[in-house]
Amino acid sequence: MLSTRFTEMFGVEHPIVQGGMMWVGRAELVAAVAESGALGFLTGLTQPTPEDLAKEIARTREMTDKPFGVNLTILPSITPPPYEEYRQAIIESGIRIVETAGSNPAPHLPFFKDAGVKVIHKCTSVRHAIKAERIGVDAVSIDGFECAGHPGEDDVPGLILIPAATRAVRIPVIASGGIADARGLVAALALGADGVNMGTRFMCTQESPVAEEVKQRIVEASELDTKLIFRTLSNTARVAANEISREVVDIEAKGCEFDDIAHLVAGARGRQVFENGDLDAGIWTAGQSQGLIHDVPPVAELVDRMVREAESVIADRLTSMLQPAGVTA
Amino acid sequence: MLSTRFTEMFGVEHPIVQGGMMWVGRAELVAAVAESGALGFLTGLTQPTPEDLAKEIARTREMTDKPFGVNLTILPSITPPPYEEYRQAIIESGIRIVETAGSNPAPHLPFFKDAGVKVIHKCTSVRHAIKAERIGVDAVSIDGFECAGHPGEDDVPGLILIPAATRAVRIPVIASGGIADARGLVAALALGADGVNMGTRFMCTQESPVAEEVKQRIVEASELDTKLIFRTLSNTARVAANEISREVVDIEAKGCEFDDIAHLVAGARGRQVFENGDLDAGIWTAGQSQGLIHDVPPVAELVDRMVREAESVIADRLTSMLQPAGVTA
Repeated sequence: MLSTRFTEMFGVEHPIVQGGMMWVGRAELVAAVAESGALGFLTGLTQPTPEDLAKEIARTREMTDKPFGVNLTILPSITPPPYEEYRQAIIESGIRIVETAGSNPAPHLPFFKDAGVKVIHKCTSVRHAIKAERIGVDAVSIDGFECAGHPGEDDVPGLILIPAATRAVRIPVIASGGIADARGLVAALALGADGVNMGTRFMCTQESPVAEEVKQRIVEASELDTKLIFRTLSNTARVAANEISREVVDIEAKGCEFDDIAHLVAGARGRQVFENGDLDAGIWTAGQSQGLIHDVPPVAELVDRMVREAESVIADRLTSMLQPAGVTA
Repeated sequence: MLSTRFTEMFGVEHPIVQGGMMWVGRAELVAAVAESGALGFLTGLTQPTPEDLAKEIARTREMTDKPFGVNLTILPSITPPPYEEYRQAIIESGIRIVETAGSNPAPHLPFFKDAGVKVIHKCTSVRHAIKAERIGVDAVSIDGFECAGHPGEDDVPGLILIPAATRAVRIPVIASGGIADARGLVAALALGADGVNMGTRFMCTQESPVAEEVKQRIVEASELDTKLIFRTLSNTARVAANEISREVVDIEAKGCEFDDIAHLVAGARGRQVFENGDLDAGIWTAGQSQGLIHDVPPVAELVDRMVREAESVIADRLTSMLQPAGVTA
């Protein structure tokens, strides 16, 4: 067992988080994560309506009595989803932990606070972590350059971002991006984090609701097999290397407008990859940590192995390096 | 004290390396690093001739009896320096540890092996680490995306590159890039490395032979204040953000030939920055780790503090997180 400020604050056994992943954060995965003693999040907007989200929360509860949360990603949009109604569904369902992401969660915080909901805000820079602390979130999850999805535009990896962020804020920090095993977990704790978030690693488990072809591709892929797209739009995303992402990179290199690539990157096409396993049907997110992923274990086995190995890295590997001063090997 | 395969193999007290830095790796710094119990490297090509290198080695020996090494960076060039003569000067001076970088060290290895010189090869990818091990180097130093100077073209940060490399080779691995303090040292050891290399951190010490203005700029700068240049030439370099590097980035974004920027990036101009402290006189390297650097300590104080704090991260912070299974806080 590893006990940190994170496990104490959120009442979970292990300092490991399965944060929101579009189309992936569904009841089966989140319940398995909760049962393993880690903290899983349903992805609110994966459900087409607030009513469907309430049903998915209820469905998860049928599978586990342990705590889990809901991710609410707030993105600027011409036709935004009904965020207030999703928020209300979360609160009325009795959820006590929410992960916010995408933009400033300030408009939603008073409602969550009033309902006794703890909020973890996901951000990608030290300045945003400081701001999130100031507006009153309970913890921040900080995404480095190596992460799947949106790393921001600063290109600062976790080795620097985690110690810089943990020195700048007093609330617990969850290290996100580039972590897929016990070594990364202990490294993040050494750098000052109180826990780790893993996306690609949890996507590649037995209970993850994505097609087997996607899991096998993650196992086969190395740390070199991701692409950064949308850099020209200042909305950088790290995605799996495939026909479409390579085409987008080529088009962006020539200098494009969003309209030139919109048809290639439509969300529905990414969903097809996850549901049908056609790996070149659309854009899908994967982090560089896929270079560290070599199997498709059940969630319980993954989390158990990770915690046991992390204990061994601390109690055996690192502790054995300690020598009294003056003693040479 | 921290004992690893690296400290045992190279006969030094601490798993900390000050690798080759052009214009910076001179006798005063390297002797101070050796005296601190870490492993410093003179930069061979900072000396204009092999005879000057032999003199610099002798000058370092006058300041310390402890082991130190010489860096030999081999770059393709139309008018290459006399590498064989530099190599001969290193061997004849009785140096026992060499750091190679830049390109394949194979042509030089038999000479070093015959002379009993151990070789650490610096590389930026798992495939190059595997190749270096195969041709017979004693250890590899692996540079992540966050490093100063040349990170390669793969953009894989240390959080992934270190565990991927340490799993792929059996020889000791030194983690390089993004490390400036005890937290980074312990993280690297947790990720599987046997030691760490620091450039920017050692550049910002009392004994470092660069102008005070450079050291103060590193202290003031954050992790955001670096630029990647020469990407369009497939020879990416991470350098300090300044007037010139911003101009190079702008010119490259428009699509340029090397001739368009050659006058801006001439080596002599970078040397002027270090010697005269005119921060905008030329291109000079700095890593993202400058965001973690807040002082200009003597080398002995830096290394002593880093080792003591690393011991505390292991023996106090990480060990206190270990809990017997079944016990909850």
